Amino acid sequence: MKTEILKLLRESGDYVSGQQLCETLGVSRTAVWKAINQLKEAGYQVEAVRNRGYRIIDSPDVMTEEELKSLIGDETKWAGQNVCYYGEVDSTNLRAKQFGDEGAPGGTLVVADMQTAGRGRRGRGWDSPAGSSIYMSVLLRPKFRPDKAPMLTIVMAYSVARALRKCTGLDVLIKWPNDIVLNGKKIVGILTEMSTEIDYINHVVIGVGINVNLASFPEEIAEKATSLRIECGEVQKRAPIIVEIMKEFEQYYERFEQTEDLSFLQQPYNEMLVNCGREVSILGGKETYQAYALGINETGELLVRREDGSIEAVYAGEVSVRGVYGYV
Amino acid sequence: MKTEILKLLRESGDYVSGQQLCETLGVSRTAVWKAINQLKEAGYQVEAVRNRGYRIIDSPDVMTEEELKSLIGDETKWAGQNVCYYGEVDSTNLRAKQFGDEGAPGGTLVVADMQTAGRGRRGRGWDSPAGSSIYMSVLLRPKFRPDKAPMLTIVMAYSVARALRKCTGLDVLIKWPNDIVLNGKKIVGILTEMSTEIDYINHVVIGVGINVNLASFPEEIAEKATSLRIECGEVQKRAPIIVEIMKEFEQYYERFEQTEDLSFLQQPYNEMLVNCGREVSILGGKETYQAYALGINETGELLVRREDGSIEAVYAGEVSVRGVYGYV
Repeated sequence: MKTEILKLLRESGDYVSGQQLCETLGVSRTAVWKAINQLKEAGYQVEAVRNRGYRIIDSPDVMTEEELKSLIGDETKWAGQNVCYYGEVDSTNLRAKQFGDEGAPGGTLVVADMQTAGRGRRGRGWDSPAGSSIYMSVLLRPKFRPDKAPMLTIVMAYSVARALRKCTGLDVLIKWPNDIVLNGKKIVGILTEMSTEIDYINHVVIGVGINVNLASFPEEIAEKATSLRIECGEVQKRAPIIVEIMKEFEQYYERFEQTEDLSFLQQPYNEMLVNCGREVSILGGKETYQAYALGINETGELLVRREDGSIEAVYAGEVSVRGVYGYV
Repeated sequence: MKTEILKLLRESGDYVSGQQLCETLGVSRTAVWKAINQLKEAGYQVEAVRNRGYRIIDSPDVMTEEELKSLIGDETKWAGQNVCYYGEVDSTNLRAKQFGDEGAPGGTLVVADMQTAGRGRRGRGWDSPAGSSIYMSVLLRPKFRPDKAPMLTIVMAYSVARALRKCTGLDVLIKWPNDIVLNGKKIVGILTEMSTEIDYINHVVIGVGINVNLASFPEEIAEKATSLRIECGEVQKRAPIIVEIMKEFEQYYERFEQTEDLSFLQQPYNEMLVNCGREVSILGGKETYQAYALGINETGELLVRREDGSIEAVYAGEVSVRGVYGYV
């Protein structure tokens, strides 16, 4: 019911009478009063004015199911419509994978305030302190073949970059294939994992870790990582950022599903690509070499021009861009 | 301790004195006596002769950790060295995947007597009654790239076929890519699943379901499925079959790991391939067509000759062989 009350107060944007809340929700005045009190205890500023009703003035920086559901409302069709929030969890990707194995619907969103076993790429860790970051994972059940799934990282990176630009006004850039950076420092990491059979996807989980309100970083990573707060100078609320990501992602995922191809995203993605037009080191496979990055192609590979002039498509692996740190 | 006693009695093949068991295991006579009694209660026939000791005469058809561990002993280096047995479980593949997510070592073997949510390919079910079949899953942590993993189905199918031939003398055949058949009927199904990042394997789980002692099948599937018992006329013990599969699989997996290629297996695999030299229907992708199967290539694809004489490599998907039923 708290979710419903939050939703009604937000939709109205003005005072909503207790009577109206009771009628809409089909509950007693006392029940409404209790729920409002619980919201106040959770940090919501709700003003109550005699003869006018309740009005929501401010929300705390929480990512609870109530908060996320009331913000998402019907802004999406499936992305984030099923939400699971943890104050503390081992890893949101692990939880989302388990939900996937147990049959949870596509679009299920797992969010945590803190991870005790946060995961980065290739089994590495992802430092996950409480109260200041977003740790979120989305479960997907695509119908396409497993070899198409890596392109979803591109779709998510683009969606996150757009959402962060909208919410903060910061000109974040994408570091191919799975980071978002600002001023040469990492602000977001994306980890796409999938459970597949030979030619069939059971499910895909895309995890997103965002440095939101960290005020500072330990010395050894301060030159490689930053946060939205450090960059724009003010504390950000996390839930609206998550909601914006879900809205963006749903839209671009559905476009991708239609064509199973990234042609529609190539140009706008490349415009946000920090690698573009810069020298990069390609660390994948047997050799390490320098090349000049041109942008992604229609399947999300990074096109690079080697010193001999030949153009190569880099599938995955690690790419470092001079002056842009990739792995924290 | 029951595992150790079973192992000592089996290794000796003759009487082992209570004194010797006590000394080897560093426990009291009473403890040995208790463990022997527990084994008898579990269905083991252990003969006790004054002044000579204990001798194992027969084992029950169980697949418990004691039974499997005492049989595997040091016959393998890693395959099945870590065993988990369930009388009843949702699905051995699901359990093995969860162990994989939680960090269990490569080679971990999950075995069940009954599955309540047995899984076939593409989200289909796998009928899993109690007491008569083998449901087993092996967890692997390969270092190679995800695109190599589908070849593991070929390695497992070959290993299972060899093990069944050794244990039963039946000339079972492989139906590419993931079934074992006999007299045109299915006897084994294999389901390979993996958890991956874009270019990194978290883990692979290979599930094997074997119809061992089923005396009959429901009418609607009796012409498509059979069991080892029906085919060879006698009840088979399941644990020794599992152990034989682990031994074979470890050997061929290690060969595969060295080259990441199936050249070494191509000829012997093709000799056991029921598809070979027969007309097959290829059901994968956009078209269904008839072709003549030639055998696998070095990456495990099925080579087929089409009516126009062209040779094609079929990657995965479903292949039906005339007179051989594939999906029960």
